[in-house]
Amino acid sequence: MADDLTDIVADIVATMQGAQDRGRVAHYIPELAKVAPHHFGIAVATADGQMVTGGEADLRFSIQSISKVFALTLALGKVGDQLWDRVGREPSGTAFNSIVQLEHEQGIPRNPFINAGAIVVADVNLSGHQPRVAIGEMLRFLRYLAGDDDIAINEAVAASETASGFRNMALANYMRAFDNVRHPVELVLGAYFHQCAIEMSCRQLALAGRYLMLDGRHPDGGRVVSPRRARRINALMLTCGHYDASGDFAFRVGMPGKSGVGGGILAIVPGRASIAVWSPGLNASGNSQLGTLALEELSSRTGWSIFSPPVAR
Amino acid sequence: MADDLTDIVADIVATMQGAQDRGRVAHYIPELAKVAPHHFGIAVATADGQMVTGGEADLRFSIQSISKVFALTLALGKVGDQLWDRVGREPSGTAFNSIVQLEHEQGIPRNPFINAGAIVVADVNLSGHQPRVAIGEMLRFLRYLAGDDDIAINEAVAASETASGFRNMALANYMRAFDNVRHPVELVLGAYFHQCAIEMSCRQLALAGRYLMLDGRHPDGGRVVSPRRARRINALMLTCGHYDASGDFAFRVGMPGKSGVGGGILAIVPGRASIAVWSPGLNASGNSQLGTLALEELSSRTGWSIFSPPVAR
Amino acid sequence: MADDLTDIVADIVATMQGAQDRGRVAHYIPELAKVAPHHFGIAVATADGQMVTGGEADLRFSIQSISKVFALTLALGKVGDQLWDRVGREPSGTAFNSIVQLEHEQGIPRNPFINAGAIVVADVNLSGHQPRVAIGEMLRFLRYLAGDDDIAINEAVAASETASGFRNMALANYMRAFDNVRHPVELVLGAYFHQCAIEMSCRQLALAGRYLMLDGRHPDGGRVVSPRRARRINALMLTCGHYDASGDFAFRVGMPGKSGVGGGILAIVPGRASIAVWSPGLNASGNSQLGTLALEELSSRTGWSIFSPPVAR
Amino acid sequence: MADDLTDIVADIVATMQGAQDRGRVAHYIPELAKVAPHHFGIAVATADGQMVTGGEADLRFSIQSISKVFALTLALGKVGDQLWDRVGREPSGTAFNSIVQLEHEQGIPRNPFINAGAIVVADVNLSGHQPRVAIGEMLRFLRYLAGDDDIAINEAVAASETASGFRNMALANYMRAFDNVRHPVELVLGAYFHQCAIEMSCRQLALAGRYLMLDGRHPDGGRVVSPRRARRINALMLTCGHYDASGDFAFRVGMPGKSGVGGGILAIVPGRASIAVWSPGLNASGNSQLGTLALEELSSRTGWSIFSPPVAR
Repeated sequence: MADDLTDIVADIVATMQGAQDRGRVAHYIPELAKVAPHHFGIAVATADGQMVTGGEADLRFSIQSISKVFALTLALGKVGDQLWDRVGREPSGTAFNSIVQLEHEQGIPRNPFINAGAIVVADVNLSGHQPRVAIGEMLRFLRYLAGDDDIAINEAVAASETASGFRNMALANYMRAFDNVRHPVELVLGAYFHQCAIEMSCRQLALAGRYLMLDGRHPDGGRVVSPRRARRINALMLTCGHYDASGDFAFRVGMPGKSGVGGGILAIVPGRASIAVWSPGLNASGNSQLGTLALEELSSRTGWSIFSPPVAR
Repeated sequence: MADDLTDIVADIVATMQGAQDRGRVAHYIPELAKVAPHHFGIAVATADGQMVTGGEADLRFSIQSISKVFALTLALGKVGDQLWDRVGREPSGTAFNSIVQLEHEQGIPRNPFINAGAIVVADVNLSGHQPRVAIGEMLRFLRYLAGDDDIAINEAVAASETASGFRNMALANYMRAFDNVRHPVELVLGAYFHQCAIEMSCRQLALAGRYLMLDGRHPDGGRVVSPRRARRINALMLTCGHYDASGDFAFRVGMPGKSGVGGGILAIVPGRASIAVWSPGLNASGNSQLGTLALEELSSRTGWSIFSPPVAR
Repeated sequence: MADDLTDIVADIVATMQGAQDRGRVAHYIPELAKVAPHHFGIAVATADGQMVTGGEADLRFSIQSISKVFALTLALGKVGDQLWDRVGREPSGTAFNSIVQLEHEQGIPRNPFINAGAIVVADVNLSGHQPRVAIGEMLRFLRYLAGDDDIAINEAVAASETASGFRNMALANYMRAFDNVRHPVELVLGAYFHQCAIEMSCRQLALAGRYLMLDGRHPDGGRVVSPRRARRINALMLTCGHYDASGDFAFRVGMPGKSGVGGGILAIVPGRASIAVWSPGLNASGNSQLGTLALEELSSRTGWSIFSPPVAR
Repeated sequence: MADDLTDIVADIVATMQGAQDRGRVAHYIPELAKVAPHHFGIAVATADGQMVTGGEADLRFSIQSISKVFALTLALGKVGDQLWDRVGREPSGTAFNSIVQLEHEQGIPRNPFINAGAIVVADVNLSGHQPRVAIGEMLRFLRYLAGDDDIAINEAVAASETASGFRNMALANYMRAFDNVRHPVELVLGAYFHQCAIEMSCRQLALAGRYLMLDGRHPDGGRVVSPRRARRINALMLTCGHYDASGDFAFRVGMPGKSGVGGGILAIVPGRASIAVWSPGLNASGNSQLGTLALEELSSRTGWSIFSPPVAR
């Protein structure tokens, strides 16, 4: 299988490098708009410990909303299932930054992966500390998961989000009116914007995601989360990880995944692989155009969809 | 494993028979409201050809919306991916009979498992014929899938739905205004209401669902749908099969599933099992209260969640 | 003033006959789409018994939703303020044929002038009879109000609406599901479509509206409705008479008014005038383009806005 | 008439002082929640220069949203009809603090009297200055209109609103994301909260509103706004002045009016009267319970509804 996987990844890289329609780089965060659309990288960490990479797998990019997976993991560690009193677990049926649903459901966001839900998660993770404490904790967590200390925040991106983050300010204030944001809005968003501005490479991201393919265990043997919690985070990624295109991603790719507006996607095949792809151009749903195509191709070639019978190794 | 599965199923039956809170039997279809809440049945058809049953696994019940899975399969056979021009593939974020979304999205239902989407599918399946032709085709399909000719329609239930089906009349007329229902509304709903009034036992239903665990193949070797289509139907069941509680079902059970207001649920574990449970009392989301709990317990005991690493046989 | 009014009306007719942008004739009812856009008529019936007309004031057109004013008057006569248990009195904030609001407010339409509300009014007016009885009553009422027996229904238009009335079918069935339509939907819509297909000239319509300027009295001295009811119908026309452009009509024209998709508008200046204008081209809000401009000009020249100090006769 | 009016007002005061159901004092602004519900005051300034008062007509209360009428007048003076590029003129169909509509209409509030619209108006009035400059201008304007220099801001109320104003923060930030709020949100809301915290008595408020009954003129002969603009402000008060109960207020009272959450209502009868009532208990729609009843009674007794033929003096 390993040789095969190497071939498949090489084929995908070749295809993507020749792609004409690369989508459109996110423009609403000025710093991100500067990234060139030609990039493509992929990294596949397998359950048996291999790493297959292709393209610019070691170039860092802004992980943006992919950070919500790790933030959720931390928040569940802090407050457990009480989190679900403040955040739902259902697909939203609306855009990632919609505020309509909040009004209809009394300030309870539909899931932890839309912006409103991630802001509540950031509020939980703040737990009375200053933003830098929460951000430090997040960085340490990612470095441990990836086994790589070279993960940091791009302060220019964080500042860029702060300057343009009026819709997130609206969401946070709105939930504060319902007492579902409990720290000062500025502190919560300070932590949130810095978390989104973390930069990682495909390789680092694939490594960081391994606990989700390994039933909650770090490859070093340590338990990150219980099997039940790992399974549930994967379920949330599948149903809610691509905003209002989550159904389409499940339909086409068939893997739990979480996308970010920086063009990255983390996808998990339980028991098989933790995969990161990156290409900054986005499709109409706000997810990486080539990243989605690459995962669809990978799923098709490997048979790694969770909706198919498991393939033999 | 077979012995284990027998024990697990027996334990589940015992637990469910002692359950206090059995939910509430659907009341909006008069005929269904007559069903007593104490029933519970389960049937598990495994990929290696076993059948493990418990409780009232051979009692027939109204499959209701579970029929949407088979209707979708037929419609995809007729028009292929053109179906997706008329129906979306995203969770709805609203109730099963909501009409709001249709107005916001120009008469295109969000997915084939909400009522509006299933009515479009029924319109496709009618394909110029009388309702009895479409219904005959559906019955033949189910009898073939289950290997059992003793599957029929409860005409009293069909009549009961027709009499109370004003919201479905509204949905169908609304979509007709957008030319997304093309046959006369009365014919489409005639077919739709009869399809929902099909009665099957858990055993029959689990048998009928086997092609979805077997990558699209009938156990007799015949191909029902392509592997890709089977995978995609499973994905739709996972993201949209439980209306606005699909996220919660994925979170708790972790299997593609489709519920019906008659209290049945069909759940698929690709490569492993096709499972049917039935208990007529519904939870607040309109899905079988005990059926959901039974599947959660089964998933937990067997490790059959699609969000966990595949377990060895 | 009479001379002045004659001059003003003549000026308005001249202006409108030279207008370039005449809006767009309604296309969704096939029979109405056949009407040529160049027509313009106006008739002003004053409180002191004069009639000033201009343009094609004696040509009949389809009064469409203007009929809702007279239907409301009849329904209030039948059930009094109990009507308000089934219909609201607030502007809708949505399009005339929206169904969204009905779902959010449990099948209670926001006001009697949006389609859903008018269908409930038609249901009230049916009061157990066949549609032809209700339609006969409506025609007799209009003939009495206008003092003119030559008012009839255009059956081709009625048939045209029936054939294309899927959204109204959806609205009626939806409200029937909430028991807010109580007769068979076909009968209610039969009456409703025929009521909309009544044809009247500007002259007839201005005459028919006189009771609303005369505190509820027919010029012959008979009481049509109480002063309080006349006042309230005028208030509803002001706040809800132009669908989601009612605010703009009040802002620009300042008279209670009701528009129809046939291009007619009935406007009332309490104590002063009952005015009908007609030009079939509609603006973006679905109200007569030239009709609205003509009333704005008339209001400006006469000072007849209800939001200004009353002018001396 | 003057004697009659005195009697009518006296009767109304007597009725209201004996009222059992006085509604509920607003609780979401802590300072306002301290006001006792037993208060009632009324002041009627007539076009011929009389002033008839009753109850606690000289007690100051927080004018809250009534300030939006004067703020709108100032903003129209600054930018004229360009204001309407940034704010609509239609009733909202939703609650005063709803954010849903903003998302559906790209950050353009439906009218200047819902909170979102008033925040845009405050942004216009800020026009590059510090909040204290804009607030000073507003106070000078009100003192001139009322002919009374003793009008001031209750700083405790302003501070109370700032502390609890998370929903307004959400609205302002949301519109800032659409560039429909252009000054820093803190400054705009600073001005807005202070404007709402102005305290006036019924007498002062009725005096301040006289220009709206006098076709735009101050009784001293100066022109405050053009007749056309006065008429249009009255129209907006009628269609949008009582949030989602504007239709009901028009139906029952029949006067352009603007309510505030402090329990005040300013109502205008063009050519006749400028009226202020105050009673702090609110009805379910958030408008003064007794204030609304008092105006309904006044309208009924005087015949001052704009939807009736004008009464003789």
